[in-house]
Amino acid sequence: MAAPHPDLADAPLLRAARGLPAARVPVWFMRQAGRSLPEYRALRGEGSILDAIHDPELSAELTLQPVRRYGVDAAVLYSDIVVPAAAIGFGVDVTPGVGPVVSAPFRTAADLDRLRPYEPDVDAPYVGETVRLAVQELGATPLIGFAGAPFTVASYLIEGHPSRTYGHTKTMMHAEPKLWHELLDRLADMAIASLLAQVEAGASAIQLFDSWAGSLAPDVYEELVLPASAKVFAALEATGVPRIHFGVGTGELLTLMGDAGADVVGVDWRVPLDVARTRVPGKALQGNLDPAVCLAPWDVVAERTRDVLRRNAGHPGHIFNLGHGVLPELDPGVLAAVVDLVHEEGRTDGG
Amino acid sequence: MAAPHPDLADAPLLRAARGLPAARVPVWFMRQAGRSLPEYRALRGEGSILDAIHDPELSAELTLQPVRRYGVDAAVLYSDIVVPAAAIGFGVDVTPGVGPVVSAPFRTAADLDRLRPYEPDVDAPYVGETVRLAVQELGATPLIGFAGAPFTVASYLIEGHPSRTYGHTKTMMHAEPKLWHELLDRLADMAIASLLAQVEAGASAIQLFDSWAGSLAPDVYEELVLPASAKVFAALEATGVPRIHFGVGTGELLTLMGDAGADVVGVDWRVPLDVARTRVPGKALQGNLDPAVCLAPWDVVAERTRDVLRRNAGHPGHIFNLGHGVLPELDPGVLAAVVDLVHEEGRTDGG
Repeated sequence: MAAPHPDLADAPLLRAARGLPAARVPVWFMRQAGRSLPEYRALRGEGSILDAIHDPELSAELTLQPVRRYGVDAAVLYSDIVVPAAAIGFGVDVTPGVGPVVSAPFRTAADLDRLRPYEPDVDAPYVGETVRLAVQELGATPLIGFAGAPFTVASYLIEGHPSRTYGHTKTMMHAEPKLWHELLDRLADMAIASLLAQVEAGASAIQLFDSWAGSLAPDVYEELVLPASAKVFAALEATGVPRIHFGVGTGELLTLMGDAGADVVGVDWRVPLDVARTRVPGKALQGNLDPAVCLAPWDVVAERTRDVLRRNAGHPGHIFNLGHGVLPELDPGVLAAVVDLVHEEGRTDGG
Repeated sequence: MAAPHPDLADAPLLRAARGLPAARVPVWFMRQAGRSLPEYRALRGEGSILDAIHDPELSAELTLQPVRRYGVDAAVLYSDIVVPAAAIGFGVDVTPGVGPVVSAPFRTAADLDRLRPYEPDVDAPYVGETVRLAVQELGATPLIGFAGAPFTVASYLIEGHPSRTYGHTKTMMHAEPKLWHELLDRLADMAIASLLAQVEAGASAIQLFDSWAGSLAPDVYEELVLPASAKVFAALEATGVPRIHFGVGTGELLTLMGDAGADVVGVDWRVPLDVARTRVPGKALQGNLDPAVCLAPWDVVAERTRDVLRRNAGHPGHIFNLGHGVLPELDPGVLAAVVDLVHEEGRTDGG
């Protein structure tokens, strides 16, 4: 691994993640490397992301594209949360326009045999290579590595396809707690191995995506999900990289998601940042512009962007982002203008 | 209209909706008349609900089936929130397994011409007839009428199909506020006409479904949605029937949804009832068992049911329900057992 760029430690994203004032409010966008960019569509072609990421040159380039276009304060690895499960041969693919699809869903204890430990360097060496290539180009701009949180990955493996109700998952959680804990423990180890390898290869922050945790009641989350996510964050502590924890519709879970050991808690647009701040005292926040609002004319987007900044009131522990991923139909010019506006008008002198 | 049953005024559902102690904790289930019931599947057949509801005998029978099977404390009209829009010829159908689909979505001011006032007795006389037939059979059991809230109906008309992001809807809200207000005002009038006709025909409570309001930030909801819903509740006030206001993922909106003029605020499982109570002081609450949890073995369902009762702590202003609709794959025996448990163990002497 090459030595990190000397200015990386002062990167606004890394300072904000630690609650420290920075030269500007850092901004990046979930799914910034994606179909909204014409240069992405031109390079990427069709087919599963799980095939595309086997090509480190391609994946590094897709990782870098949005940094060049938008001037965002971080790159995020071009990858998917089901990569480790797919790499150990669990039988999962990502169908374009649908999401992760599992040929034989996880339903009984016998399926544990199909979840052997993930060895990043052996099972998916192309991921580390992508990180190294991207980091070389990025210089003083941080690369965010990521993994799926145990619950959200479990929900895909158990349901077999994207779900709105998580019936099989919730049944297993409640009816077979021993199997559930065993499954989540293995998925926690998988996330840990993946994240440690990404940090080793040069990622200077990580995000744990528990995208669908917001489907759970708080006491269920606390008892049956939080411990596995906390194990992931604890295992990353010694690396020293900031740890971001993200989910959608998590208003009632924000305090618990901070307690799980994150340095930064992601907030979707449903909870105003000033309200979120009261639920996650002492942590940095990430968010929280509604991605659908970005389809509106610029003056609307600008007003909603300013509203996020106003509610943050200059608190240094703020990473500007959308509340969820960039929509594929979005005009990238809008995001470029959001970046400029946040950089121009964002303050880090309050809080 | 026949005289209401003399015991109807003492119905537990109507007393709880007004915050008054009742003989038992009332319970009903959203989508209790539906595919989870074998007698429903046997009678209903395939095809659009919009065709089925043209037959009042059939629809009344489907309305009554769950009351007979479960002993719930209310029937809910077998209908759909897009019935009025369909009945005036807007061009909307309900595709089984998908939801409302609109052939020519509402996108510009010219589309206002396609939204003429809804005249229930002329446009959909079969709805009133269904209510009358069902109420005759129900005796002292209340019938809940319902309508779609202006925002949620607007989201279907604008998107053209069920959406997860509401991009077109949010763009119109923000970019064309005048058109948006005009649209919501017409949809409010449509809901008012529909609900008044249902009450006139014998419904003794109403529910306004703003199912997807939880996709909005609170300040956006307050400015661009709440006034139209408040107009609906205000127009129903003189009828004296309890008014229930429901949405999914509305943790941050509960206070505002109460402010809109409801007597009862529906809560999904994401917000524990004791927390919800602090956000909606002085109103009755409805909810909030997770429908997906009902797929688990009975001891799990029983424990989660008891948890709802425990958190309500005997407050008389509680109508037990799921946090969203019954899942089609659910074993109806489970719901029957939930009703029994709530009736046996629910208390109305606390609060």
